[in-house]
Amino acid sequence: MLAGFSFDQIQAAHQRIAPHIHRTPLLQNQWINRHLGRQVYFKCEHFQKGGAFKIRGAINSMLQLDPQQLSCGVVTHSSGNHAQALAIAAKMLRTSLKCELRCTVIMPENSPKIKILATQENGADVIFCQPNQAARIAATHEVIQRTGATLVHPFDQPNIILGQATAAKEILEQQPDLGTVVVPVGGGGLLAGTCLVAKAWPDRAAVQVLAAEPSGADDAFRSFSSGQRVTEHTPNTIADGLLTTLGDLTWPIIRQHVDAIVTVTDAQIQDAMQLLWERLKWVVEPSGAVPLAGLIQAIEQQTLPLPADQPIGVLLSGGNRSFAGI
Amino acid sequence: MLAGFSFDQIQAAHQRIAPHIHRTPLLQNQWINRHLGRQVYFKCEHFQKGGAFKIRGAINSMLQLDPQQLSCGVVTHSSGNHAQALAIAAKMLRTSLKCELRCTVIMPENSPKIKILATQENGADVIFCQPNQAARIAATHEVIQRTGATLVHPFDQPNIILGQATAAKEILEQQPDLGTVVVPVGGGGLLAGTCLVAKAWPDRAAVQVLAAEPSGADDAFRSFSSGQRVTEHTPNTIADGLLTTLGDLTWPIIRQHVDAIVTVTDAQIQDAMQLLWERLKWVVEPSGAVPLAGLIQAIEQQTLPLPADQPIGVLLSGGNRSFAGI
Repeated sequence: MLAGFSFDQIQAAHQRIAPHIHRTPLLQNQWINRHLGRQVYFKCEHFQKGGAFKIRGAINSMLQLDPQQLSCGVVTHSSGNHAQALAIAAKMLRTSLKCELRCTVIMPENSPKIKILATQENGADVIFCQPNQAARIAATHEVIQRTGATLVHPFDQPNIILGQATAAKEILEQQPDLGTVVVPVGGGGLLAGTCLVAKAWPDRAAVQVLAAEPSGADDAFRSFSSGQRVTEHTPNTIADGLLTTLGDLTWPIIRQHVDAIVTVTDAQIQDAMQLLWERLKWVVEPSGAVPLAGLIQAIEQQTLPLPADQPIGVLLSGGNRSFAGI
Repeated sequence: MLAGFSFDQIQAAHQRIAPHIHRTPLLQNQWINRHLGRQVYFKCEHFQKGGAFKIRGAINSMLQLDPQQLSCGVVTHSSGNHAQALAIAAKMLRTSLKCELRCTVIMPENSPKIKILATQENGADVIFCQPNQAARIAATHEVIQRTGATLVHPFDQPNIILGQATAAKEILEQQPDLGTVVVPVGGGGLLAGTCLVAKAWPDRAAVQVLAAEPSGADDAFRSFSSGQRVTEHTPNTIADGLLTTLGDLTWPIIRQHVDAIVTVTDAQIQDAMQLLWERLKWVVEPSGAVPLAGLIQAIEQQTLPLPADQPIGVLLSGGNRSFAGI
């Protein structure tokens, strides 16, 4: 039991969602291992449905809606990957339950076009709003009042945290001897879920959790360093999936259980992304390259102990990048 | 036995090279299956050492050099992926045999920079030449006369064809029920090797072989259609790995055993490449996208029978594309 969550709940979430998601591979690359001097295992959530881990939380939430809730539909706000995930999850449920299940997504008007298109292609109604937190929340509440839709939050609900936790659970099932797991942090759903798995798996030693965050959206780093949650910020980074601040549920878990948060500049994100594209032949978007950029920084700066004989897991997500016109 | 090659020779080549190469995965994508109406299996040779299948033939040749040949080094001419493969193979042998083993590569001066750099990074001496077949061959002969180096041809030697054949062998081991295998054709080493496996595997039914070629370098298509080998052409395509004409050894095998050759325009290659990047999250270069573009065309044009209930294997190679400045 950790922060009110039990490991049984994570296991139940995993059983619930397993038929609906990909068990993505955990892969290595010799060049990376040689250059970082460590065994690095990449959890390929950029190959997940929707190109990101977000489907885990979305489908875990939606599979627990009752018929009344299903009839009123779901709503969320997201700049992209959670939006797509909710749209895909709703589409899967429409097919399997043969029902209407309306899905409405509030997206900031400056969201990447590829993510807007993918959300719409999967049958969601997209409503655009100003690119700030207040506008997102106001537009979401308007939909809830008008339609009675259920909010499937991008990160700050128990079922979302439990769903995202299954990614870390798979990582440690696929490679049980990892000493450290590196994940990105935006709103903190994945990071909080990773803590639950890394620190509270019964009969297992705790695993280090390193979070990586763009320095242009470093609210988690500043919150973690000061012990006071930062809720106001104006993010400015190419990592468009990691702009939000921590939530009421995610913050206490992160404050207490994360081992370190490392920040990376846009140039470092760009370099890591190019490495992933050119050396590993994987398309990841800027947000997806943040954990590798963070690991490189953490090794250089000795942010936390990363002994050469302890393998490291790095979660890659997402892979939604447009190449139109290239 | 087919065209003087026995299946035992392919098996011996596979045993010889297996410890030195990756057994690349054979992967599916739901979106592709849905949109093409067929089960499509991608052989991920863009994840192979050097980002292409070329290492198979290169290392198969080099593992059979005698000490005298090793002492004089190896030479080849290539615009990129075979160049890189030979450099990597030579580097691996230098390490395992603790010898000098010089590797010289003649590259057209307009070869992609990423391929030139990777060839040099792996310790090869690169000599640039004019971008035409005659200049490549003249420069290669000059090196042979000066140094006594052994030519490891990019496609037209038995050990190269046998090495490349192992890719098709793995495909049919990984998914034995394939009805068709789709591969690209440049000089024809891979295509000839694929024919050996698809048509002469003892106690197995023959598998259809579909070759895909850029319409801007369609010598194989024209040779195959007319029955007369085309040896003079001025290629003009974004698929820089598929510019050469067929060889003395590869042409007779291709003429007799390939089921169909389909050509694809640069726009179709570009579309297939974008599909692979955006939907499958895989970085392939233009040449690597040619087989998928070809399969899409072959289905549309009904170039050959591709029944919906017969799975199809598509070989993807290479993945060497620069993203500098993106």
